[in-house]
Amino acid sequence: MKQLDVCLTPDLLHLHKLENSIVVVADVFRATSCMVTGLAYGVKSITPVATVEECKALQEKGYLAAAERDAMKVEGFDLDNSPFSYMSEKVIGAHIAMTTTNGTLSIAKAKTTAVKVMVGAFLNLGALVNQLRSEQYDVLVLCAGWKGRPNLEDTLFAGALAEALKDQFILVEDGALMAQRLYMQGRDNLPGFVANSSHVRRLQRLGIQKDITYSLQSDLYDVVPILRGNQLVALH
Amino acid sequence: MKQLDVCLTPDLLHLHKLENSIVVVADVFRATSCMVTGLAYGVKSITPVATVEECKALQEKGYLAAAERDAMKVEGFDLDNSPFSYMSEKVIGAHIAMTTTNGTLSIAKAKTTAVKVMVGAFLNLGALVNQLRSEQYDVLVLCAGWKGRPNLEDTLFAGALAEALKDQFILVEDGALMAQRLYMQGRDNLPGFVANSSHVRRLQRLGIQKDITYSLQSDLYDVVPILRGNQLVALH
Repeated sequence: MKQLDVCLTPDLLHLHKLENSIVVVADVFRATSCMVTGLAYGVKSITPVATVEECKALQEKGYLAAAERDAMKVEGFDLDNSPFSYMSEKVIGAHIAMTTTNGTLSIAKAKTTAVKVMVGAFLNLGALVNQLRSEQYDVLVLCAGWKGRPNLEDTLFAGALAEALKDQFILVEDGALMAQRLYMQGRDNLPGFVANSSHVRRLQRLGIQKDITYSLQSDLYDVVPILRGNQLVALH
Repeated sequence: MKQLDVCLTPDLLHLHKLENSIVVVADVFRATSCMVTGLAYGVKSITPVATVEECKALQEKGYLAAAERDAMKVEGFDLDNSPFSYMSEKVIGAHIAMTTTNGTLSIAKAKTTAVKVMVGAFLNLGALVNQLRSEQYDVLVLCAGWKGRPNLEDTLFAGALAEALKDQFILVEDGALMAQRLYMQGRDNLPGFVANSSHVRRLQRLGIQKDITYSLQSDLYDVVPILRGNQLVALH
């Protein structure tokens, strides 16, 4: 039977073997919710980069550029880290360069050894579940967390995936078990369940409650972003 | 208001500032449950050491020695990692040297910068709660985990402490929040709630279900182990 494991933060990734695994990176608030939304709205590719400078360099080559640090848009870029900024005609067919505090770093870490890297969010949960069932590989859900620390929303997403896949996969360690149980506790009211989390408090101060509510919806889009080379594209 | 934070594994300790904190180390199965039991039964001091060799060296100086690796007793030592081996006349007044896979490592990491290091288990939960309420410092609960990974039982203990202290302390980050919620979910039947955890499965293969059941009992002992120099002693 295939195995499903959960890594609660990229700072613990060194403890996991990825040689036979698809890594699903989750940064629910808001990087991976943006990526899923963008690709669903017709973005051609998203190139995650580590630094603001790399993002700027790609912008100068004609990419639309999105840079976020500490949950805020960096000056001089085209898109911010709200999924709503990806629901626009200008993104259709566009190549996007993106750097964020946690999500793009996790993708960079995962791609060094994983068989495949996919991107997950509640928004594409069902599509991802179907895809992972059809693959022959183990799965590691990599929660992006917040500056190395675990966070509630990404853990809940990992739990949702574990719950959906538990009949086809063995949940190998306690990370997966804890995530699944937290999800079962919160599933009937995710916005209420995350309301006191540190990241939600951080985001609420920025006045972006609508991004939170939006990003906690399941199965809005039937798209699975997958990393090909340095670019995330929609898997067909 | 004082702050309570939870670090789910020693591999994430670098993300926490300890300069104003009491660190409570928890390795419920079974190092810290042994320590609490031993000090309650009259052990004079417990010296946690990193290696089997150091443990052996102290044994040669007259210490009772306890060495565990991968949940099993190492050959040639006096005590194993079962709390029941500390319920004996031979431990009264004894100085003990102890090395374990996860617990003693966590203590070693914590003592470099924390204001004080205490040892926690369900067995001394109430005593610890009273002590921490009376202190002026923040609290970091350091879960020993399993070889760098978070585990369920230590997270549940952290959650029990967070729940008990939530009126006197701010739960600062999502680690504390997740632990508290898992504890609330499992509190009415902790043995059932941990039954599928990876460590319990590991221990059950070794036939030590009674250690598990014992270690999940709250408030058996009114003792708070505290590190003085290199020795854990009962706080008076």
